[in-house]
Amino acid sequence: MSQGAKPDKAIVLLSGGLDSATVLAQANRKGYACYALSLDYGQRHSAELAAAGRVVDALGVIEHKVIPLDLTQIGGSALTDDQIKVPDAPGKGIPITYVPARNTIFLSLALGWAEVLGAWDLFIGVNAVDYSGYPDCRPEYIEAFRRLCQLATQAGVEGGEFRVHAPLIEMSKADIIRTGTRLGVDYGLTVSCYAADEMGRACGRCDSCRLRRQGFVDAGITDPTVYR
Amino acid sequence: MSQGAKPDKAIVLLSGGLDSATVLAQANRKGYACYALSLDYGQRHSAELAAAGRVVDALGVIEHKVIPLDLTQIGGSALTDDQIKVPDAPGKGIPITYVPARNTIFLSLALGWAEVLGAWDLFIGVNAVDYSGYPDCRPEYIEAFRRLCQLATQAGVEGGEFRVHAPLIEMSKADIIRTGTRLGVDYGLTVSCYAADEMGRACGRCDSCRLRRQGFVDAGITDPTVYR
Repeated sequence: MSQGAKPDKAIVLLSGGLDSATVLAQANRKGYACYALSLDYGQRHSAELAAAGRVVDALGVIEHKVIPLDLTQIGGSALTDDQIKVPDAPGKGIPITYVPARNTIFLSLALGWAEVLGAWDLFIGVNAVDYSGYPDCRPEYIEAFRRLCQLATQAGVEGGEFRVHAPLIEMSKADIIRTGTRLGVDYGLTVSCYAADEMGRACGRCDSCRLRRQGFVDAGITDPTVYR
Repeated sequence: MSQGAKPDKAIVLLSGGLDSATVLAQANRKGYACYALSLDYGQRHSAELAAAGRVVDALGVIEHKVIPLDLTQIGGSALTDDQIKVPDAPGKGIPITYVPARNTIFLSLALGWAEVLGAWDLFIGVNAVDYSGYPDCRPEYIEAFRRLCQLATQAGVEGGEFRVHAPLIEMSKADIIRTGTRLGVDYGLTVSCYAADEMGRACGRCDSCRLRRQGFVDAGITDPTVYR
């Protein structure tokens, strides 16, 4: 952060899940003027978007944009293709809930908004420990995207330096929950379930629910999630 | 291209302009099974999208997707922000028609579709000679995106190699027009103007019109563009 009168601006990708809510709290705590970006990408768990609205209301941002982007046209994932069922039990390798190129698409949009706002800092709640094999949740991916920012933008070409923050990348789910709890995040507002119902109630069985539930157990913190 | 029975699949970014029509003809000529991707990003020159439809009908593709993506929400360019006027005369530096992170956003979507289809080849009609200072039209940018593809995707992590083709990148507009003409492209179907009317008629004054018109003059080929 610069020590000037105005805080630096940051774009925070916000899904409405546990991880990105924690990241928003971290970016706020660091003193950034936060601009939250959510994508309505036709995901099954659209209850997440309602959760994103609750999270920004609770934590505070300068602006929250929700951009519609119909990834169901591309398909290829249980989260965006009605023909692919969200599995109840974890499988081997990269799971079917992987959305092709999702983080690249989301970071690209964040980069576009950053350039318009004059922001240099992008925040994303990816996690390499619990990442279930998603390739675009690894540190080497984040670094490759940062390099791309420098070459892709007028601001980067003119010598500015973008930063892509992934503060959760090496943390366990329990560490994330402890961190967010210290920062005052109300995880009862968030929805992580891949198959949440319209009320945002979690299935308790999908990969995301299992990781989240175990995280609260490991952190020794009461789980505020409403299961159906 | 592999020498198997089935042609390799390629994603071709298609705007409906002169350059991307040429690229589609090149990819078809190389024997790829082409999948064309157009973005309806709230651009002023939406006549380009009608042109994209005419181009795929004339040149042939396996599938043409038009994905709506409202970049007007991000703004920052004369092409997506109603408050910014398209200039009549070229200015200095990167022009106001630059759309922040546009090629990164478009290539990311192409990458997502490529991964779903099992395609390794992305084609984009960027041009460094006539690029008017757009940072995401340079060879070093294209190479950075290719590296990102390897790290961003399940397919790349598993050892596959993506290729990002920018066959026009070092060509003059006249060279592009000569190449496409040899390949049978009917440039009368395409629309390049930043301020085309609903009929696709060009203004003849914007940067894009000037470059295109001069290209036909330099190539010694009759300009089929309809100016209003």
